Amino acid sequence: MKTAEEIQKKISEYIGSTSFSGTPKELYDPIVYIMSQGGKRLRPTLCLMACELFGGDIDNCLPSALAAEVFHNFTLVHDDIMDQAPIRRGKETVYKKWNSNIAILAGDVMQTKALELALSHRARHTYDVVTELCKVAREVCEGQQYDLNFETQDNVSIAEYIEMIRLKTAVLLGSVLKIGGLVAGASEEDIKNIYDFGINLGIAFQLQDDIFDCYGDAKTFGKMPGGDIADNKKTYLYLKALELSDDDDKKKLLSLFSMKPGRDDDKMRKVLDIYGKYEVKKLVTDVMRTYYDKSLTYLDKLSVPMERQTALRDYAEALYFREK
Amino acid sequence: MKTAEEIQKKISEYIGSTSFSGTPKELYDPIVYIMSQGGKRLRPTLCLMACELFGGDIDNCLPSALAAEVFHNFTLVHDDIMDQAPIRRGKETVYKKWNSNIAILAGDVMQTKALELALSHRARHTYDVVTELCKVAREVCEGQQYDLNFETQDNVSIAEYIEMIRLKTAVLLGSVLKIGGLVAGASEEDIKNIYDFGINLGIAFQLQDDIFDCYGDAKTFGKMPGGDIADNKKTYLYLKALELSDDDDKKKLLSLFSMKPGRDDDKMRKVLDIYGKYEVKKLVTDVMRTYYDKSLTYLDKLSVPMERQTALRDYAEALYFREK
Repeated sequence: MKTAEEIQKKISEYIGSTSFSGTPKELYDPIVYIMSQGGKRLRPTLCLMACELFGGDIDNCLPSALAAEVFHNFTLVHDDIMDQAPIRRGKETVYKKWNSNIAILAGDVMQTKALELALSHRARHTYDVVTELCKVAREVCEGQQYDLNFETQDNVSIAEYIEMIRLKTAVLLGSVLKIGGLVAGASEEDIKNIYDFGINLGIAFQLQDDIFDCYGDAKTFGKMPGGDIADNKKTYLYLKALELSDDDDKKKLLSLFSMKPGRDDDKMRKVLDIYGKYEVKKLVTDVMRTYYDKSLTYLDKLSVPMERQTALRDYAEALYFREK
Repeated sequence: MKTAEEIQKKISEYIGSTSFSGTPKELYDPIVYIMSQGGKRLRPTLCLMACELFGGDIDNCLPSALAAEVFHNFTLVHDDIMDQAPIRRGKETVYKKWNSNIAILAGDVMQTKALELALSHRARHTYDVVTELCKVAREVCEGQQYDLNFETQDNVSIAEYIEMIRLKTAVLLGSVLKIGGLVAGASEEDIKNIYDFGINLGIAFQLQDDIFDCYGDAKTFGKMPGGDIADNKKTYLYLKALELSDDDDKKKLLSLFSMKPGRDDDKMRKVLDIYGKYEVKKLVTDVMRTYYDKSLTYLDKLSVPMERQTALRDYAEALYFREK
């Protein structure tokens, strides 16, 4: 069984050997740009780990794993237009470096490229993999739309927020694990469990991300913290603070989150004061722990012996204790 | 053999029985909106006609035919953002009726929905159909990027323009005909010829569209004519006029096409005067005729008896002599 590092090395090599260039170069340069930026490579790593866990040959899984990574990067390119985000992974976003039109079009090609990669390895599992990629593509868009809706929607509930991040973030983690299982020819039961592991891990992962966005260090996080507060994003932290606040703090919070989006140190300090008063960081960390623990219960159910699970469990743990 | 009208009736019924709705409704309402607008249904019609031409069962082809129509509509939704086009088919464009973010996201889902439709009919041909749809998706984006490039590119050649419309418009017509052939199990040779028929028909079709954009009637054309001139689009008409103009007219044209994009009756009149002086409408009509005639030579090469070709030939002719 390969470790996460060994798998990530394989992914890097495979990405390095895959051409993202083409003509017109105005269309393909942004794709080369974003695909060469690195990032955690979380999705292909999980995909290959699942494949190996179920005894599959990870070489057969590389195209689908990369498909998921390209797909993920496509969603970032389009999301950054919608969120008008200038920086991602410490670098200018595609829309900022080029323009919105190029970012729309480059994203469109990346969505196609993802499927072309999955189709490039024609095998018994190809139909199911492509079908899964389409399903998850739709769900991720639904999640992004809920996220956009929340900007103007009052009374977003915590349940709605969790459903949003399930769609926007978690389903793709579930799907890549499922795809690894499909390539390996795992049983339906095992595939269901590894998928649910991914869903719960994904929700924990996003809650962690929300915490980093508030309390992270700019250097390790790769972008300025406080973006969610600047953008009035109704994250779990905000919703929990709102739930716990007394009337006075509730009024303050609502007023702070009605300000024109944009960075404002005074706003940031006031919001963090309220978050601190109601200990929402600790509360959200607890919820995150609950999802993480739940994710592991699905690994317990796998028909795979525990010693084969070590690499994946170690990786999930490292993800849980990550610093960015 | 069914006529175009019978086939179009089948497509309308099939579209009517296909659900494009979902949640969140902010995401799916625009898809329902654009898919219910009608339009020529040119791509699914050609797809089903090719299927029937080669002796296939068009019921097996309906999902792929609709896939192509959904894909085409996705490109319109995204193109209209990039071109900031307010009106399409006599109605507000998605980006105008909702906003850019929703139009980006709805388009993304439509691209997925197209493939899901093609995947929904699992058969011998499914892999090839989905692969073809991905290939053409990439090419159409490349064509759109060339179109965007031309906005700021000096010295666009007529050959470059033809290559742009080949990618942006013609390849999809070629592909839908090919897909019809794939579903019917046509020979490689026949598929190659029907594809090339589509490419040449598509170029003729786009040249016709350029002429309508200049000289069409707002009522039948579904949008105000003159959009290309207002947007300084370097169409065949413009490039030909530029090629033929004396120094004085060339200067005038270049200056008129350097104006800030936007409707301007005086500009429109001046440009049309120059077009008239050099008879570019007639010249482009002749070029269009050449592509149309060439398209028919590929039908001549088919292994299919002439009497089976009547419906498709009639349809191509009607397209050629269309008024919008």
